[in-house]
Amino acid sequence: MNFCSQCGATLNLTIPDGDTLPRHVCIQCETIHYQNPKIITGTIPEWDNKILLCQRAIEPRHGLWTLPAGFMENNETSLQGAIRESQEEANAQISNPSLFCVFSIPHISQVYMLYRGTLINGYASPGNESLKVELFDENSIPWDSIAFPVITEALKLYFKNTGSSGSITHSGDIIRHEGKLIINYY
Amino acid sequence: MNFCSQCGATLNLTIPDGDTLPRHVCIQCETIHYQNPKIITGTIPEWDNKILLCQRAIEPRHGLWTLPAGFMENNETSLQGAIRESQEEANAQISNPSLFCVFSIPHISQVYMLYRGTLINGYASPGNESLKVELFDENSIPWDSIAFPVITEALKLYFKNTGSSGSITHSGDIIRHEGKLIINYY
Repeated sequence: MNFCSQCGATLNLTIPDGDTLPRHVCIQCETIHYQNPKIITGTIPEWDNKILLCQRAIEPRHGLWTLPAGFMENNETSLQGAIRESQEEANAQISNPSLFCVFSIPHISQVYMLYRGTLINGYASPGNESLKVELFDENSIPWDSIAFPVITEALKLYFKNTGSSGSITHSGDIIRHEGKLIINYY
Repeated sequence: MNFCSQCGATLNLTIPDGDTLPRHVCIQCETIHYQNPKIITGTIPEWDNKILLCQRAIEPRHGLWTLPAGFMENNETSLQGAIRESQEEANAQISNPSLFCVFSIPHISQVYMLYRGTLINGYASPGNESLKVELFDENSIPWDSIAFPVITEALKLYFKNTGSSGSITHSGDIIRHEGKLIINYY
């Protein structure tokens, strides 16, 4: 971040009065440009004791498998975003959604919110960002070809809790420490 | 948003190839400047069947009461942010936190995450952004002087579920429709 998006002047990285962290502050109009974590929202579409994964047609992680998910947009709810991403990536419709897990991933400043729900009619087909979409049970999941660690973790958590009530929400963190990922639940 | 924060050139509001929504795109370096919802993270500090509220010393809503909460920062977890805000606004330490509620508020592009937890030793004192801090039971809450509708909703939800397990997470939306706020839970 080099220039003020409001007035075009140069930015200074400085701690504003009353603040505790350095911010990009405009030297001309004094606008403070905050940077905050982004939310990734998506679904775990369920059908016939299987769940839907999408094979990515885009970078990063082209060719690897993931749940339908993407950046939450302004002016939508996290559930609306999750349903939108499922439609865009897998032409999937979801009923009876409930918030399954929330993960903070501080080293990439992201928060994941994933909703489990029924894949209506068990129907899905690849959207523009997917090469293939496919239903997997626990044993057939391509565990070695999952696109992101948080998705692997969510899938493990899902199959461990698949017998439990749909309304339980799990929350935790995925922390990178000395090159390894540590998962905390609370 | 008028200027590119990368190179300082003018921005065009246009729908990029393969996208569905208008974005601010730089006419020179072609950087796409996405805007996404922000997370507000905070706590419901519990002590002796009461909870802690802070009277705001800052705008907006100076003089009104709220839970300790604020914008989640990059490179922290939502729980770390909640604990940090409780320290900053009320010098409050929290133990045994669990995620109590997640609310999307699309008309202001915010997602609230509130953790219930024990206020250690029942101790709190006003931070820089608070005039007063005080423990309230349900009947003594200043219901007519709560700073934000989402906080009123979270407090109502809390007292309705106060007997239940600490590990239940509620999720929902606060939607503005024809000037009224509609609450959906799922």
